[in-house]
Amino acid sequence: MLEPVLIDGAWRAATSEGSFSAINPATGERLPATFPVSGIADVEAALDAGVQAALELRDTQPEAIADFLDAFGEGLLTNRDALVASAAEETGLPAEPRLNTVELPRTADQLHQVAAAVRNRSWVMATIDTGAGIRSMFRPLGKPVAVFGPNNFPFAFNSVSGGDFAAAIAAGNPVIAKAHSSHPMTTKLLTEIAHSCATVTGLPRAMVQLIYRLRHLDGASFAGDPKLGAIGFTGGRRGGLSLKGPADAAGIPIYLEMSSVNPVFVLPGALHARGDEIADEFFGSCTLGAGQFCTNPGLVIIPTGHEGDAFVDAAAKLFAEATPGVLLGSPDHISDAVATLVGAGAKVLVGGSPVERDGFAFANTLLTAQAEAFFGDPESLQTEAFGPVSLIIRADTIEEMTSIAAALDGNLTGAIYSASDGSDDAGYSAVEPELRPRVGRLLNDKMPTGVAVSPAMNHGGPFPSTGHPGFTAVGVPAAIHRFAALHSYDNVPDARLPLELRDRNPNGVMERNVDLRWTTDDIA
Amino acid sequence: MLEPVLIDGAWRAATSEGSFSAINPATGERLPATFPVSGIADVEAALDAGVQAALELRDTQPEAIADFLDAFGEGLLTNRDALVASAAEETGLPAEPRLNTVELPRTADQLHQVAAAVRNRSWVMATIDTGAGIRSMFRPLGKPVAVFGPNNFPFAFNSVSGGDFAAAIAAGNPVIAKAHSSHPMTTKLLTEIAHSCATVTGLPRAMVQLIYRLRHLDGASFAGDPKLGAIGFTGGRRGGLSLKGPADAAGIPIYLEMSSVNPVFVLPGALHARGDEIADEFFGSCTLGAGQFCTNPGLVIIPTGHEGDAFVDAAAKLFAEATPGVLLGSPDHISDAVATLVGAGAKVLVGGSPVERDGFAFANTLLTAQAEAFFGDPESLQTEAFGPVSLIIRADTIEEMTSIAAALDGNLTGAIYSASDGSDDAGYSAVEPELRPRVGRLLNDKMPTGVAVSPAMNHGGPFPSTGHPGFTAVGVPAAIHRFAALHSYDNVPDARLPLELRDRNPNGVMERNVDLRWTTDDIA
Repeated sequence: MLEPVLIDGAWRAATSEGSFSAINPATGERLPATFPVSGIADVEAALDAGVQAALELRDTQPEAIADFLDAFGEGLLTNRDALVASAAEETGLPAEPRLNTVELPRTADQLHQVAAAVRNRSWVMATIDTGAGIRSMFRPLGKPVAVFGPNNFPFAFNSVSGGDFAAAIAAGNPVIAKAHSSHPMTTKLLTEIAHSCATVTGLPRAMVQLIYRLRHLDGASFAGDPKLGAIGFTGGRRGGLSLKGPADAAGIPIYLEMSSVNPVFVLPGALHARGDEIADEFFGSCTLGAGQFCTNPGLVIIPTGHEGDAFVDAAAKLFAEATPGVLLGSPDHISDAVATLVGAGAKVLVGGSPVERDGFAFANTLLTAQAEAFFGDPESLQTEAFGPVSLIIRADTIEEMTSIAAALDGNLTGAIYSASDGSDDAGYSAVEPELRPRVGRLLNDKMPTGVAVSPAMNHGGPFPSTGHPGFTAVGVPAAIHRFAALHSYDNVPDARLPLELRDRNPNGVMERNVDLRWTTDDIA
Repeated sequence: MLEPVLIDGAWRAATSEGSFSAINPATGERLPATFPVSGIADVEAALDAGVQAALELRDTQPEAIADFLDAFGEGLLTNRDALVASAAEETGLPAEPRLNTVELPRTADQLHQVAAAVRNRSWVMATIDTGAGIRSMFRPLGKPVAVFGPNNFPFAFNSVSGGDFAAAIAAGNPVIAKAHSSHPMTTKLLTEIAHSCATVTGLPRAMVQLIYRLRHLDGASFAGDPKLGAIGFTGGRRGGLSLKGPADAAGIPIYLEMSSVNPVFVLPGALHARGDEIADEFFGSCTLGAGQFCTNPGLVIIPTGHEGDAFVDAAAKLFAEATPGVLLGSPDHISDAVATLVGAGAKVLVGGSPVERDGFAFANTLLTAQAEAFFGDPESLQTEAFGPVSLIIRADTIEEMTSIAAALDGNLTGAIYSASDGSDDAGYSAVEPELRPRVGRLLNDKMPTGVAVSPAMNHGGPFPSTGHPGFTAVGVPAAIHRFAALHSYDNVPDARLPLELRDRNPNGVMERNVDLRWTTDDIA
């Protein structure tokens, strides 16, 4: 018996083109529930219902959307035991602290932050030119948004509870969620909660829809359908680019969060002052979640010499001694990536191969290469191994470090560790200007794996880490802007304007840009 | 003797793949100067020099960029006689009032507005989260921006003086300008002024570069070169899409301002109260600049019945009696568009063919069709005829008008005329919700051809009028954001932050979003 899809407000049988089951990565066993691979008829039905929902949303007040987001955030906590149990079974991630104490509350908090932005309406960036009689703001796309979630965060980036979902809903768009095939039951449970909250708060019945899986060709048709308003995707580069082509051709904005090796530069003074401490931080960051983080430190640049050697030894010891975490799925792609790195001149220091056990695991792995090797094949040596794997590049001089920075591809993050006594200041001044334009977020003295839901966060970066350097997938209100259209009103009387643009500030707290100054005042 | 290109700060001979001359559209005569079709070597040299200039710009203060923009704005006025004479010769647009009194001062004013935004730095959207220790702002792309200008505004949208140019420079990027082939000498004169101002104000020598023309394949290589940071394009749909493909594939943001028929709905009450007046406005707007405006009212929806007939008669009389303006080039594309409209069921009321004269002209042309015809082939009947041409659709009811709105493609603008006595309120409430999501700017009781340089302007709209519904090509500061990357700083000490993100507000006037409130205050 196939699990149903949620289309147009009803759980119904998919027009199935096949079926699949998730695998418990900790045991390698197939889980009992069977999910459909949807046919194109499901996609079309969801798109039509989504377009209808977008029409209905014209008459929906922001408060209803905020109520939904808040109710859903609370619903996550109410249902946390079932959600955590399902996610643990489908992802192999530990229930404690990761799923139950960290990720689930973070996901609920993110929904509440987005709800607050919807309530105070600041995300719309209301802009008023009283002299010209022109006013503008961000508004919904008028079409549904497709969200493709990744495998590694079953809650925080899930296609029906994560950042893209919350942002698309906040902007006033219905969402068609494409579950990640590795955790379909968790996604189903989340969708049940979301749909129930949407119903209770009076949102359109197709506000949230769910399909589990599509054949590749149908996925491309979906991504290129002009009934879509936009797409949010988090996952691997190949999958992202396979959607980008058809979306681009149809003029559909697509926001991709793809691949990144997140370079970390340890300058000589920092290495001298606290090499062991940094090795600890590096180990913790790189093996967190079995290394399956978009912001995993996959490339670390360490000076040559005995202090650098000591760092590498310390890190290697930590990597070798720790028990490898359970992976989300087969480690084949990690083996492939390690083979590419080795083929380009990297040497395996620790690990390097899958772990023989029930379920999925890959040895905690450290590789190393000299800077010259990196300059010889920078593309291959920036291959992302999505797991507990990092490549340490040894650099003789600050000049070499700077040249490595200059040879980097676009990344989500880049970090520099420097001494607090000023001895690294010249080195910092050399490396930073090359690193800065190649990353979305620059960190100092900090590993990149923490991604705070902050208004100043940029979880984004230059291509190919994402598809556009100007947008972030995390952070409120900026993440919401991805799913909005700019609407200008020229010579439109007050009574016909959206509430946010009328002379009277509708809630007294929304900041509006009036004649180039931000203010909460009414227009005189 | 071929005119030189400007690459890396020097006027030099192009690696020529051919040559061309502009034509005086008023006489049809070829102008004496000969310009090169550049080879790919010119593109590569410009890209390399542009990348170098982007590096040098890291150490350039915003004040120098603002000084450049202001100096260039003044330079336009100082050189206005030569500029206007050249533009008039190359475009056939009247020197007075259009070029000298309207467009040139507007272009200078736009440069000054952008300079002001650079000085006060408000466009960077500095965002500070004091609790999390994360700060973000928009910064340069770190690579050159390519700007492709259109034929219809030799100053205001020129690739070396127009909105895209100013916005790309303001964000701190070098510009590689691709002249429009119809006004190369005007573009050369502008580039001479720009380059001279850039030199005087100490900007990198490749801040502004110019090539005139490329073969199609070389244009595609240019658009897809990873050394480019972004592309701004204004022109026809075919040209825009030919650049979009390679740019998208390389992950290069491309901002296209392409095609639009700018629907105008005249509701029955407005028609009754002031039909003649609206016919006058329509005629003026549609024939302004010989109809060669992106925001030309190319589709007008008028009620059936005798008042609608009177409107059509009045408009037809005005169109028939006026002398057709000089076109920018051959009217063949207008003949093709009119043939498409007629083939889809439209009837020619006035004009419909090229004018027999020296130079280029097309008769002022009005076509008409019933709403049923529109519903039968909405795609063909939204064909843009880039000239003094408009199609009047006759609708029996508000329901038909609403259905027409619902069948529209993405447009830059949409306008609704309604009665001031409230008699059109129900009609407005029916049509507006369908029109609103399909246009970037909604006008009331006003023709769309005026595009004010206002912070609340949206000169943009849903695909295919542009490539992304969230961005505007006109208006400060929003237009600048297109050419910027979002840079986040996580745990970075004050002294290492850009001035805009430090605790101390660097100029005391820049508004920054601190813990979700806008303020000019320093951080305590």
